[in-house]
Amino acid sequence: MSDDTEVLAPETERDDDAYTLERKAVAAILYAVDINDREKLIELMEPLHAADIADMLEQINAFDRMRLIKLYGKEFDGEILTELDESIREEVIGLLTPEVLADAVRELDSDDVVDLIEDLEQPQQDAILEALEDSDRVAVQQSMTYPEYSAGRLMQREVVMAPEHWNVGEAIDFLRDSDNLPDHFYHIVLVDPRLRPVGNVALGKLMAARREVMLTSLMEETFHVIPVTRYDGDVAYAFNQYHLISAPVVDENDRLIGVITIDDAMAVLDEEHEEDILRLAGVGESSLSDSVFETTKQRFPWLAVNLVTAVMASLVIAQFEDAITTVVALAVLMPIVASMGGNAGTQSLTVAVRALATKDLTGANVFRVIRREVMVGLINGLAFALVMGIVGIVWFGSPALGYVIASAMVINMVVAGLAGTVIPVVLEKVGVDPALASGAFVTTVTDVVGFFAFLGLAVLVLL
Amino acid sequence: MSDDTEVLAPETERDDDAYTLERKAVAAILYAVDINDREKLIELMEPLHAADIADMLEQINAFDRMRLIKLYGKEFDGEILTELDESIREEVIGLLTPEVLADAVRELDSDDVVDLIEDLEQPQQDAILEALEDSDRVAVQQSMTYPEYSAGRLMQREVVMAPEHWNVGEAIDFLRDSDNLPDHFYHIVLVDPRLRPVGNVALGKLMAARREVMLTSLMEETFHVIPVTRYDGDVAYAFNQYHLISAPVVDENDRLIGVITIDDAMAVLDEEHEEDILRLAGVGESSLSDSVFETTKQRFPWLAVNLVTAVMASLVIAQFEDAITTVVALAVLMPIVASMGGNAGTQSLTVAVRALATKDLTGANVFRVIRREVMVGLINGLAFALVMGIVGIVWFGSPALGYVIASAMVINMVVAGLAGTVIPVVLEKVGVDPALASGAFVTTVTDVVGFFAFLGLAVLVLL
Repeated sequence: MSDDTEVLAPETERDDDAYTLERKAVAAILYAVDINDREKLIELMEPLHAADIADMLEQINAFDRMRLIKLYGKEFDGEILTELDESIREEVIGLLTPEVLADAVRELDSDDVVDLIEDLEQPQQDAILEALEDSDRVAVQQSMTYPEYSAGRLMQREVVMAPEHWNVGEAIDFLRDSDNLPDHFYHIVLVDPRLRPVGNVALGKLMAARREVMLTSLMEETFHVIPVTRYDGDVAYAFNQYHLISAPVVDENDRLIGVITIDDAMAVLDEEHEEDILRLAGVGESSLSDSVFETTKQRFPWLAVNLVTAVMASLVIAQFEDAITTVVALAVLMPIVASMGGNAGTQSLTVAVRALATKDLTGANVFRVIRREVMVGLINGLAFALVMGIVGIVWFGSPALGYVIASAMVINMVVAGLAGTVIPVVLEKVGVDPALASGAFVTTVTDVVGFFAFLGLAVLVLL
Repeated sequence: MSDDTEVLAPETERDDDAYTLERKAVAAILYAVDINDREKLIELMEPLHAADIADMLEQINAFDRMRLIKLYGKEFDGEILTELDESIREEVIGLLTPEVLADAVRELDSDDVVDLIEDLEQPQQDAILEALEDSDRVAVQQSMTYPEYSAGRLMQREVVMAPEHWNVGEAIDFLRDSDNLPDHFYHIVLVDPRLRPVGNVALGKLMAARREVMLTSLMEETFHVIPVTRYDGDVAYAFNQYHLISAPVVDENDRLIGVITIDDAMAVLDEEHEEDILRLAGVGESSLSDSVFETTKQRFPWLAVNLVTAVMASLVIAQFEDAITTVVALAVLMPIVASMGGNAGTQSLTVAVRALATKDLTGANVFRVIRREVMVGLINGLAFALVMGIVGIVWFGSPALGYVIASAMVINMVVAGLAGTVIPVVLEKVGVDPALASGAFVTTVTDVVGFFAFLGLAVLVLL
């Protein structure tokens, strides 16, 4: 934005406590649990949204959680379960009596029940399925036959559809006469006689139009049909890219079988981002409420990979033991080159991994991006080479040492830019998640090249 | 999910090319540009969504971009501009003739124009404002008086509202009679006589109800009112947390002045995530289409911080020059301890930064999380201490060296867990973005502690 408007604009209200559960409210709830006051507890919980109750249950300890749920009893709402983190969900379901659990899940839409049970163990799955009415159970079981992470798991089966030859009046009369409309819907899906979706009509458009207007003349410009087996991350991408609000889902014969709405897509987008961030840091799937044991297990593999990387770097150093004994300054300075390369490589790879995820890095621009990253590595390398060259001369009084570290810096940062881009692109090509694996490869390259370039040049120049 | 369903479920269709622009399509378009065939170009571009055209413009080089835009001429759609990456947007606006630009922006909603011009330089801003009709210009200028990143910038000013005492019939007649309804709306906002919003009625509910039903009896259970100065990240959080589709925006007197819809919130959520990922990697705001110069400038500060960190680590090593000269194996092994600590610290800090962003890490559980991270560091530290102890003994034949590296490993990984959690929490408390600054602090701690613990213990035990 321009400076003028910046001066005019008042401060944004960036209240960090907006939407954070108040500590006082939590304390009051826990006090009601302490004194076993069920009425007070219900009164305090009543204004809270299910998502906030779920957050609170995640944040208090297991003992308080158990006492709270026991005291809360049959007030427990099914929506709280769907909002709960997976790691806590099983525990909470185990705390509910069969009657409370049955009541809770019976309130839910079929897609929420699917979301709820897909990660549960068989006995808990069965308990929930048994609690459902027959028609709901069939719907849930049907959804569960679609692959995990597919559009089929994400869609709701309740669809509002109309024949493509209807006019507005016919559609409105039909809606008014149906007594089983979904809780939330934003479009009427127009279908041909073989139930294939041909377009979406927004409810707002329908309300504003005269009764005799044909539905086909009101269809949305942007219309996307989603195959039931499509990966849910791609579904979320389409919603985000094309600003969709809802989209019809079709089976292998292109027949309409469900609809996905933007709130489901938003949840998937959120999860995908979360996964990418955690994977880039070498933390698989994880949650704040995981136990010490689970967390240790999740973190271990990446640390083990890193150990192998670090040992490989050590093997490079070991080749130069004599040089280090002769010029101990080499040991002092060598981590700098490796560290700078590692950081520059991480910068490049993060940009590349994100651009791959958002489909911004493609065959059309990959060579231009690689060239850019190498140039950036070269320029920043030269800048830091100058700095470190001077440090080398001033600190150790050796122009030759300054020259060695400066050259190694340039080499390693160019390599970092190259490896940071090429490695994720190649991993994506061969079908490995670049967010998960790039870090280890890039660090190995920058460590090995960093130590080898620095110590190797030192042997050539200094000894 | 259980094993049974896993066996039943077929493969998810994870087609990496879903929604990626086909290389062939791009090649055909560029060929039409090459042979200067305007009709062919228009024919090829016609089926593409504005978002896809924007992606293509970002991916081709600047020369092709210029020729394409010149040839495409007055077909250029305003929506393409809003979809373009900021770094390319200015360039593209510069390429459009004043008439094409005027036509393009006149098609847009006021909130899209705001989004478009807020990052432009004053002359381009003025050119676009001049192209607008008077009423639109006033709306845009009004929105620009709200702070950047506020709900005011995000909202659309076109609101569909109704008095709270109306019934369904009155609302439907009103909608049918208005000829200026927004393109997309999902709720009717009920307001009291002082224009303060009291509830949302979903269009679907309205359509299904009988004419004499009171609107107040159809209000949504979840209803959130957003102050106009609220930070847009908090708005996005509320949409995600409470599964909102649209929410009314109010001024300082609680009067309804606009509405924010989920697609805007989704875009903000996406940007926030992107920023967090890039900041964690020390790459400020950046885009794939930034120039070499801009990219170099963005990456430099974080690398400079890292250089300071690395030099501090070197100063620690320099204190132990004599020890390294005596036992050169120390130089070989010392990067391992620092590297493992750095990685463990990055794992902890990433989890903490994410949990702070999603408001899952609060005063209620911070001590439990710190305890968990320290325990995880201890257990993983012991595991890797065992491995490295053995490596030390086998590689260098020195049990004492094995003991030193094992102890340093445990110390550094416990410190990593502690620093990785405490540093982001403290940064957040003092108002610094933990995603941006945690990395440098945590790495400094693990480097310094890693080298100091390893070399210090070595002096005590080995010399």
